[in-house]
Parts: sequence; structure tokens; C-alpha cells
Amino acid sequence: MGSAGVRKMRKPRVYVPRLAREIKLSGREARHLAQVLRVRPGREVIVFDGSGMEATARVAEVTTSTVTLSADPPQRAEREPPFELVLFVALLKGDKLATVVRAASELGVSRFVPLVSERSVPRSIGESKLKRLRRIAIEAAKQSGRALAPTVSAPLAFEKLTAVSFGLVAHPYAGSRLAAVSWPRSGAVALASGPEGGFSEDEVERLSELGFAPVRLGPRILRAETAPIVLAAAAAALRDI
Amino acid sequence: MGSAGVRKMRKPRVYVPRLAREIKLSGREARHLAQVLRVRPGREVIVFDGSGMEATARVAEVTTSTVTLSADPPQRAEREPPFELVLFVALLKGDKLATVVRAASELGVSRFVPLVSERSVPRSIGESKLKRLRRIAIEAAKQSGRALAPTVSAPLAFEKLTAVSFGLVAHPYAGSRLAAVSWPRSGAVALASGPEGGFSEDEVERLSELGFAPVRLGPRILRAETAPIVLAAAAAALRDI
Repeated sequence: MGSAGVRKMRKPRVYVPRLAREIKLSGREARHLAQVLRVRPGREVIVFDGSGMEATARVAEVTTSTVTLSADPPQRAEREPPFELVLFVALLKGDKLATVVRAASELGVSRFVPLVSERSVPRSIGESKLKRLRRIAIEAAKQSGRALAPTVSAPLAFEKLTAVSFGLVAHPYAGSRLAAVSWPRSGAVALASGPEGGFSEDEVERLSELGFAPVRLGPRILRAETAPIVLAAAAAALRDI
Repeated sequence: MGSAGVRKMRKPRVYVPRLAREIKLSGREARHLAQVLRVRPGREVIVFDGSGMEATARVAEVTTSTVTLSADPPQRAEREPPFELVLFVALLKGDKLATVVRAASELGVSRFVPLVSERSVPRSIGESKLKRLRRIAIEAAKQSGRALAPTVSAPLAFEKLTAVSFGLVAHPYAGSRLAAVSWPRSGAVALASGPEGGFSEDEVERLSELGFAPVRLGPRILRAETAPIVLAAAAAALRDI
């Protein structure tokens, strides 16, 4: 198990209603650990509750119907992607930006930059709307179990965009598909998605020069509020990070 | 190119503003085809417009700044996943089911089955709400370029669920991750996602017996309306089908 050349055994994850120093499992969880995973005394597992806390625990005793665990002090579970995830999203009509911010905050985005692009219909966001987006981001992140609160920048003029080390821009006619992306393991990941009418061809070319590779999100045309959610899901949730 | 043992060359996809019998490209598209993809007369490409139509075309002439294509009659582009994609989604509060139906219709879902589960707060949907969901599904599918209109069934009692050949159920504490799923190439794909409080443990066990494998959608807890959208995106859009 610990010897060189042997792959580290993955610690099973065990849901418990309440974290404590000693945890006695019975019923389905105990059967699963004892009979399916065949844990034996000394084996390490991760116990976690629904609140975002988790702890390393060691199996102390296994009987035919119970498993007793001895747990370390609980810590906040790691729920942040291993890179800064920045979403550049064009200003959208109505309340669509709120929909995007809410879902993408749950999906691990750490920073939102609203973009004023050529075809954006609203050309700015008022201070009260911006404050509301910030509240939504914080609330959604908290509900999803994150410890980090995402930020929402003031709107940025498209022309002010600067180069990124790794970026993707959603484009329905891109030659590359999202599933074929080689994601970086660290640094920052920048995602960009356009307004209702899409980025203009000039904007896509400019984004491309700045390091945002165009990718298509499947064969169908996604609405302006769905595309950034799919991008964010692909960058983190679907990779289980 | 056509000979046995040689991998079929992928046809480049070329966006054109308007499909026609003869298409003369200039500017960026022409440069890309001629200089990057190095197409030569006789090479086949797919031309498509923004309306969901596409055609096979052959390169007729290549100059330093133009590429002329000779196109077959246009056909509706293939935008349906190669399997029936069914989403079993628990009844949700307020207008959240509409949000799910709208996004998942863009993402390729072909059938929605609202589920009355243990923790669903609304216990039914009125006929007018159901009609509205059906309109939303059709409208969203159409906007996304799909030819097929998704259906929305009347609500189904959880107990009436029957076995599926391939299914997944979103579960925040599942041991398997969505990214590791082996998707079938044909048949039907059934996706299930729970109400605000999640499916009960008994329901997850029952779903599992019926062929729905529990999968987690990343390390964070997703809201009841975000999880089914991520599931649908993973099943089709992110696989570019």
C-alpha cells in the first residue's frame, strides 16, 4: 500500500450525517464498506457531511453489520478548482447575466468579467445591478459548499481585454470541440462567451490573438446564457475539480 | 483518401453566409482553406449557414485569395444525438422546471419526464403549466437548430419508474464521476436528477436497481436546476453529438 511502485490506494469517500471523533456506521453504508470495498481495520477513508466539512478517518472495527471509524478533526472540503477560473461574459439582456453568475458560481468560477462587446444590447450595468450580481455570486458559491466567494468586476470594454495564458471562447462554428481541449493543471483558465448575437468575426479574431481558442459546444446553437454555463461545467465540474 | 486502410479524411466545415450552388470565398475563410488546410480542387468540404442547413461541396478552384466551391443541394444539418436522450427530472419549485426544459432542449434532450419524488414540493403540474413547458421545449429546440421537437410527459410517480438500458442519476456523494462514464453509442440514454432536497437514499437505491448509475457532478453541490443541465451537456454537447 505504501511501498514504492504500488499505486496509492484511493481513500473511499463515506457520507455521514454528522462528523465526530468516533463514527459508528450501520445499514447500507456499513455493508458497502465492509462487503463491497472490503475495508479492514487501519484502512483510511474520507468522511464528509453535507455542509462542506470532511475528515480523514481510520477503520477501527468491522463486524458483520457495523463499521467503526476513528476520525481526525474535520476540515473544510477542498472545493476550489486548482486554477483561477475567470469567465468573461458579454452583457446580456434582462436578467440573464444573473442566471449565468448563479450557475457558474456553483460550477467553480472565481471571477466574472462582464464584457461590453459589439453586439451587446445593454451597454453598461448600473451599480445596483452589479451589487446584486455580487450577492448572487457569493450566495450561490456558499450554497454549493465553496469557501471562496467569486468576484464580479465592473464591465470591461472589449477593447481593453488583455492576453491570457490559457483561454477558450465559445463559438458555434469553431473547428475545435470542447471535449478535445487539453486543460492546464494550474495557472488561470479564462473562458469567454458572447452576447445574444454572438461575438463579431473581428472580435473572435481578436480573442484568438489574445489567447482564447475558439471551441464549439456541440452541434447545436446554444443561447447566450447557456453557453457560458456549459463552458464553466466543462472546465471544472465535469473534470471533477 | 478512399482506399482501404487509409483513414477517411475529415471534411473541413466552412461557414458561409448563404448556401448556393456555386460559392466563392475570399478573405479569411479562403486563406484558411487554401493556406492552413491546403485544400486543392476536388477536395470535399461541408458548407453551412447559420440557419441549420448544410451541404457537401467540392473545391472547384483555388487562387491566392479566393476558393470557389461547387455545392450539392442543401440539407438540414444533423443536430440530434445518435440516441434518444431522456431526462427524468423531479418536479421543482417555481419556474425552475422551465429553466431546465429550455436549456436541456438546446442541449439535445428528446424527452422530458417530470417525476413526483419523495421530496418534491410541488406534487403535480397543472395542464396549462405542462402546455407551457411543451411550448418552451419546442421553441428552444427550434432556436438551437434542431429539427426534432422534444416531448414533455405528464408527471410520473416515482414508483412507476421502470428499468432503463443505460441511465445515470446525479448524486453529490456518488463514488463515480461523470467524466469517467462510458457512454453508449446508440439506444437510449436516461438521465435522472432530483428535487431541491435531492432524491432520498431509498430512491437512489431504487434508481440504481433500475439501471441509473449514481454519478457526481464535481466536488461542489449543484442546485436542482443546474444539475440536470450539466448532465444533459455532458451526455451530448460536450461529446459534440
